[in-house]
Amino acid sequence: MTDLAAVKAALKTQAVETPSWAYGNSGTRFKVFAQAGVPRTAQEKLQDAAKVHEFTGVAPTVALHIPWDRVDDYTALAKYAEERGVRLGAVNSNTFQDDDYRLGSICHPDAAVRRKALGHLLECVDIMDATGSRDLKLWFADGTNYPGQDDIRARQDRLAEGLAEVYARLGDGQRMLLEYKFFEPAFYTTDVPDWGTAYAHCLKLGPKAQVVVDTGHHAPGTNIEFIVATLLREERLGGFDFNSRFYADDDLMVGAADPFQLFRIMYEVVRGGGLSARVAFMLDQCHNIEAKIPAIIRSVMNVQEATAKALLVDRSALAAAQAAGDVLDANAVLMDAYNTDVRPLLRQVREEMGRDPDPLAAYRRSGWAEKVVAERVGGRQAGWDA
Amino acid sequence: MTDLAAVKAALKTQAVETPSWAYGNSGTRFKVFAQAGVPRTAQEKLQDAAKVHEFTGVAPTVALHIPWDRVDDYTALAKYAEERGVRLGAVNSNTFQDDDYRLGSICHPDAAVRRKALGHLLECVDIMDATGSRDLKLWFADGTNYPGQDDIRARQDRLAEGLAEVYARLGDGQRMLLEYKFFEPAFYTTDVPDWGTAYAHCLKLGPKAQVVVDTGHHAPGTNIEFIVATLLREERLGGFDFNSRFYADDDLMVGAADPFQLFRIMYEVVRGGGLSARVAFMLDQCHNIEAKIPAIIRSVMNVQEATAKALLVDRSALAAAQAAGDVLDANAVLMDAYNTDVRPLLRQVREEMGRDPDPLAAYRRSGWAEKVVAERVGGRQAGWDA
Amino acid sequence: MTDLAAVKAALKTQAVETPSWAYGNSGTRFKVFAQAGVPRTAQEKLQDAAKVHEFTGVAPTVALHIPWDRVDDYTALAKYAEERGVRLGAVNSNTFQDDDYRLGSICHPDAAVRRKALGHLLECVDIMDATGSRDLKLWFADGTNYPGQDDIRARQDRLAEGLAEVYARLGDGQRMLLEYKFFEPAFYTTDVPDWGTAYAHCLKLGPKAQVVVDTGHHAPGTNIEFIVATLLREERLGGFDFNSRFYADDDLMVGAADPFQLFRIMYEVVRGGGLSARVAFMLDQCHNIEAKIPAIIRSVMNVQEATAKALLVDRSALAAAQAAGDVLDANAVLMDAYNTDVRPLLRQVREEMGRDPDPLAAYRRSGWAEKVVAERVGGRQAGWDA
Amino acid sequence: MTDLAAVKAALKTQAVETPSWAYGNSGTRFKVFAQAGVPRTAQEKLQDAAKVHEFTGVAPTVALHIPWDRVDDYTALAKYAEERGVRLGAVNSNTFQDDDYRLGSICHPDAAVRRKALGHLLECVDIMDATGSRDLKLWFADGTNYPGQDDIRARQDRLAEGLAEVYARLGDGQRMLLEYKFFEPAFYTTDVPDWGTAYAHCLKLGPKAQVVVDTGHHAPGTNIEFIVATLLREERLGGFDFNSRFYADDDLMVGAADPFQLFRIMYEVVRGGGLSARVAFMLDQCHNIEAKIPAIIRSVMNVQEATAKALLVDRSALAAAQAAGDVLDANAVLMDAYNTDVRPLLRQVREEMGRDPDPLAAYRRSGWAEKVVAERVGGRQAGWDA
Repeated sequence: MTDLAAVKAALKTQAVETPSWAYGNSGTRFKVFAQAGVPRTAQEKLQDAAKVHEFTGVAPTVALHIPWDRVDDYTALAKYAEERGVRLGAVNSNTFQDDDYRLGSICHPDAAVRRKALGHLLECVDIMDATGSRDLKLWFADGTNYPGQDDIRARQDRLAEGLAEVYARLGDGQRMLLEYKFFEPAFYTTDVPDWGTAYAHCLKLGPKAQVVVDTGHHAPGTNIEFIVATLLREERLGGFDFNSRFYADDDLMVGAADPFQLFRIMYEVVRGGGLSARVAFMLDQCHNIEAKIPAIIRSVMNVQEATAKALLVDRSALAAAQAAGDVLDANAVLMDAYNTDVRPLLRQVREEMGRDPDPLAAYRRSGWAEKVVAERVGGRQAGWDA
Repeated sequence: MTDLAAVKAALKTQAVETPSWAYGNSGTRFKVFAQAGVPRTAQEKLQDAAKVHEFTGVAPTVALHIPWDRVDDYTALAKYAEERGVRLGAVNSNTFQDDDYRLGSICHPDAAVRRKALGHLLECVDIMDATGSRDLKLWFADGTNYPGQDDIRARQDRLAEGLAEVYARLGDGQRMLLEYKFFEPAFYTTDVPDWGTAYAHCLKLGPKAQVVVDTGHHAPGTNIEFIVATLLREERLGGFDFNSRFYADDDLMVGAADPFQLFRIMYEVVRGGGLSARVAFMLDQCHNIEAKIPAIIRSVMNVQEATAKALLVDRSALAAAQAAGDVLDANAVLMDAYNTDVRPLLRQVREEMGRDPDPLAAYRRSGWAEKVVAERVGGRQAGWDA
Repeated sequence: MTDLAAVKAALKTQAVETPSWAYGNSGTRFKVFAQAGVPRTAQEKLQDAAKVHEFTGVAPTVALHIPWDRVDDYTALAKYAEERGVRLGAVNSNTFQDDDYRLGSICHPDAAVRRKALGHLLECVDIMDATGSRDLKLWFADGTNYPGQDDIRARQDRLAEGLAEVYARLGDGQRMLLEYKFFEPAFYTTDVPDWGTAYAHCLKLGPKAQVVVDTGHHAPGTNIEFIVATLLREERLGGFDFNSRFYADDDLMVGAADPFQLFRIMYEVVRGGGLSARVAFMLDQCHNIEAKIPAIIRSVMNVQEATAKALLVDRSALAAAQAAGDVLDANAVLMDAYNTDVRPLLRQVREEMGRDPDPLAAYRRSGWAEKVVAERVGGRQAGWDA
Repeated sequence: MTDLAAVKAALKTQAVETPSWAYGNSGTRFKVFAQAGVPRTAQEKLQDAAKVHEFTGVAPTVALHIPWDRVDDYTALAKYAEERGVRLGAVNSNTFQDDDYRLGSICHPDAAVRRKALGHLLECVDIMDATGSRDLKLWFADGTNYPGQDDIRARQDRLAEGLAEVYARLGDGQRMLLEYKFFEPAFYTTDVPDWGTAYAHCLKLGPKAQVVVDTGHHAPGTNIEFIVATLLREERLGGFDFNSRFYADDDLMVGAADPFQLFRIMYEVVRGGGLSARVAFMLDQCHNIEAKIPAIIRSVMNVQEATAKALLVDRSALAAAQAAGDVLDANAVLMDAYNTDVRPLLRQVREEMGRDPDPLAAYRRSGWAEKVVAERVGGRQAGWDA
């Protein structure tokens, strides 16, 4: 028996962080299709993010990306966000778009490039001080494209050295979230390719260093919920970058490609005590061909639905079937929760939170989309600047 | 016993087509790293391609990409190429970079977009008439990112209709090479995702429609040499887009990731009678971080080395071991050829062709790299314009 | 708007064929865990299959595997089945377990082995004559483990020759279903590795030759619903071998690993007019560690649930969103159907069919499991005899 | 410049351990093809292994598998081996073939089963005491087939507990090698699925716990040499189980599927100082369709060839090119070594070691194959007993 009041309470306190860059243009190496109404500034991204929170009620923070969101006054930016009902979240570094980073950043063979990259990372911590952000999210595009191109092990040494300097700079209450990725843009080796590598580095750094799981960054067939369960057990799960994929790092809306997988992941989060502030639930998606704000609202709702189903699992029945070694019954307990249509429950939760039960319809009715198309004319639309 | 004279004769007549776009800038969605000296015009790309042929002796043609290589006078462009010792090869269409193509081109749900795409394809045949190119290479980025986004089957109907119109326009001696790709930039369905789909369409179109195998466009673990053998048996192998990959469509130098696979592919080509003008051997690569011209020279040499090894297979010994069901001996015959160091043989072949035995060293000595860096200043470097 | 009466009518006429071998023991190369009560004869397998039909109402036929189900009198076996409320379905050949088949069967380099295999296939058609089966299901373990081991193309020639002889033997109303498989037990080449190869052979044989899609037999990431849509469009989809997998050919319960994929497949079946007698819906699973009969009941229910959801898709709303190019709305229409809890509807359908609304509970109450454990003592349990 | 004398010296001291089970019958879940002359006892396996060492000179030890090699007197078995010129190597445990292990062994939900499995593991250490083996190789088939079947995290707790008990039992100079595997026979979760999990457990256990890398146990596309470099850097690489694969855990001859990958792995071994007694180089293969002893000889030679090429890499030239950021030159230095035909060098090494330069020819001439076929008649051939 699940306690419905507890389920609803948990759903009401859920928080999904949306990324500033998802509101801007994005695409593939073949083409970036620009969309009308896309923000041109960090402030306009925050406006859009505020809309997502307004209609969902569970997206209170916004991740920044430096330099894409660079401003003169981060304190003012934080205030700008708060005036619109949201807060600034994780700061994401970028050490892959300067010409100097062709062969890597903090793993680069040239010490001067490594120093430059390190400078950027330390600047990001300065920004965190100003914004009050807790988390520095580190994703490194570092790697090699050809066997022999660089020394695999020496790059690990450089990585460890760079991370240690950043770690030393972290203040109280600040964390470093280290992201791993199977491949891309490096096509032979990636310097942090899997959770094991990220975990090994975090272990040596200390408790403020935590692993972040991007759901699209694994080899085909990888059991992601196993990694989630393991990292929670090791107390090293810092957060998620949610998205979904059929192939590589497709960055589709979370829950769009394999909603059952998302449910299994959220079940391990619930089971491992991860539905707490200790774990950051972030989106990291690209809405290349679909409207961005509604896609983000939909993504937040998908996370909610998976969480609701995970919370509905009858854990005592499950434990009993597992202890009895009854494979089919144990599986059935899990599937019962998954097969439940939780949309009515979530509509109710939203109403109890004073929100519209149907966030997408409410957003459409709001006229925001038409407004920004009309007003955001001229200037340079935000994007990846690749 | 292999006939060394025949091997050398085959190697001397080998022809690898280099793609104009490989001489320009390329990158990933994260960053395009520009390189000094990169061509700014179709003519400058032909200059570079002529250098590759000058030093290898086996790269006599250059593939064009429209609109990246659009010029006012294609007859003049063909003449420009010939004056530098090369010829224009396949014409590659582009139906993925116009804003109208966000949801596809000839598979798009809107008939107006389909007509526009078709117009471009027919324009490409016009260009072939002017350049004397034999092959129209068709790669479609068409597909969908989300389940339900469009009707899978209706898109096939539209595809068939569009291809039929292009096919009808082909002149005598002209061919359509239909390329398939597992995924990217579409992330849920791709309208021509595998050789079976390309083959089924070609069958209905007629003998001028042939399948092109891009070695980086397959699901993980796919046995590409099996596809090559099958398409040769079906007389539907039109050509190759050579490159190599560890992960997805990485577009690394052919032979760089799995030289043994390249050898197995070339063995099936030799065994199936495909080492002839009927099959187009083309490169399709991106030299994102390495120097472009030497990378292309190296790629051509890699194809040569794999071909030489394939030609050295003792086919009568192989047939005998196969007929006897001797697994280890049959494998050993193949491996003997693969394990042979064919570089001395190829140096000899080059000398007999009046070329330098070491193309890379000769290229370096030529001063071309320094010359273009000095001269190609200003203007807009060629690239994918994504 | 979906027509609920039509949905229920379609669900009532659905037919899922269960495989005789799924009632016997199975396992991996590491271990076969025997289960108490497992059938020892073809007749006992039919008893179990009859129970599955009794409790689900939609599993009226049973696939045979020769020689595992070899009996002296197939007419009597058919009668035995009918007396228990089921009928004999497809006949599955086995050309992989005789010592002669170490290097293949109808693709073997030795003509004597090929003749032996052909003899077995023709015997299977004789059995079909006796059982009244419509479909001969052909899966070939043929392939090679090492490069060079045999000639890829010659094996295709042998395959074509053998299939042609079998095809010529088919009577009116009989069909040949050709199954493809990515790999296993062959580990380098498989002679029918993908749908394209199966399709190409079927095309040459004639309309009685149809492709069968085993949902576990694809490369990682392959879009199976695309293949289903394509084969239906080509009128070459003969049927399914349903199961599910996370990795290779895991043969888990259908719908257990990726229920959303199963739904997408069933949607393409519905959309392509494949929910008809023309397409055989068969299970092909291994219940290595779970109780077999309940696992098969559960699998049948999983197919029903996916079918119900597919039937509930609001196709006119979907078509409208697709035509408008509204990516999110089109996706949402599909997801609405998927997110619906169809279990109440199916309980109602079962009641209207005069069955228990909860097949698993009814089966458990029936005491069949205890009965067969008590009675099926001694003798040799059925299995793969590997 | 490489020091040829040093290369030869290294090659002469190389040691590849062959596994007793590779001399017995093996197969897939579909069929085990028995071969004439296969050993019936542990002693006969040692006879065959001694032949492999006799003809290669670099296969001085033989891995045991308990219970497949269970004997009454292990001291006598060790003596038997030594009399034939070989020694007993790693002891491999088996906790997957007893009926009790259907749902796992030391991760099983039932404490009684866990105790039984633990008893077996401790027995293996007893055997090591008798045989003088240094390494206990632990591979666990533990895992689950269905979501919900068991609690992922609780299984990790049980695993940690069991490993700790075994670790405590290890004597001075004894080690525990923990093997990970992506999947099979478990098809949903595997309790030690990747190097990260094995590493995390080893870290907690202590320095005698080391990770073993089976080259066939990774997700598609995984960069194995990166893992090797990382584990060497972490001083946690205990050894290899060598084999090769195109798809899953195919267990083909090492070097047969991707000889370039094997070279890259051996290069990281050489570069990381792993070509020492600290790392155990073991084969773990299945010769399902090919003659076993020659296949093992060939495998040993393949490891030698890859090692020779790795040793021939001009490391100072490589370091210079890497430091200069010259992608193509650095890659070329590596490829130069790979493209070298090292077979003449290895023939010379063998002659200097007093062995025949051509191990396979020498083995064939020896008449051993004919002798064992004639003599090993009757009894029960060794195999996996699955």
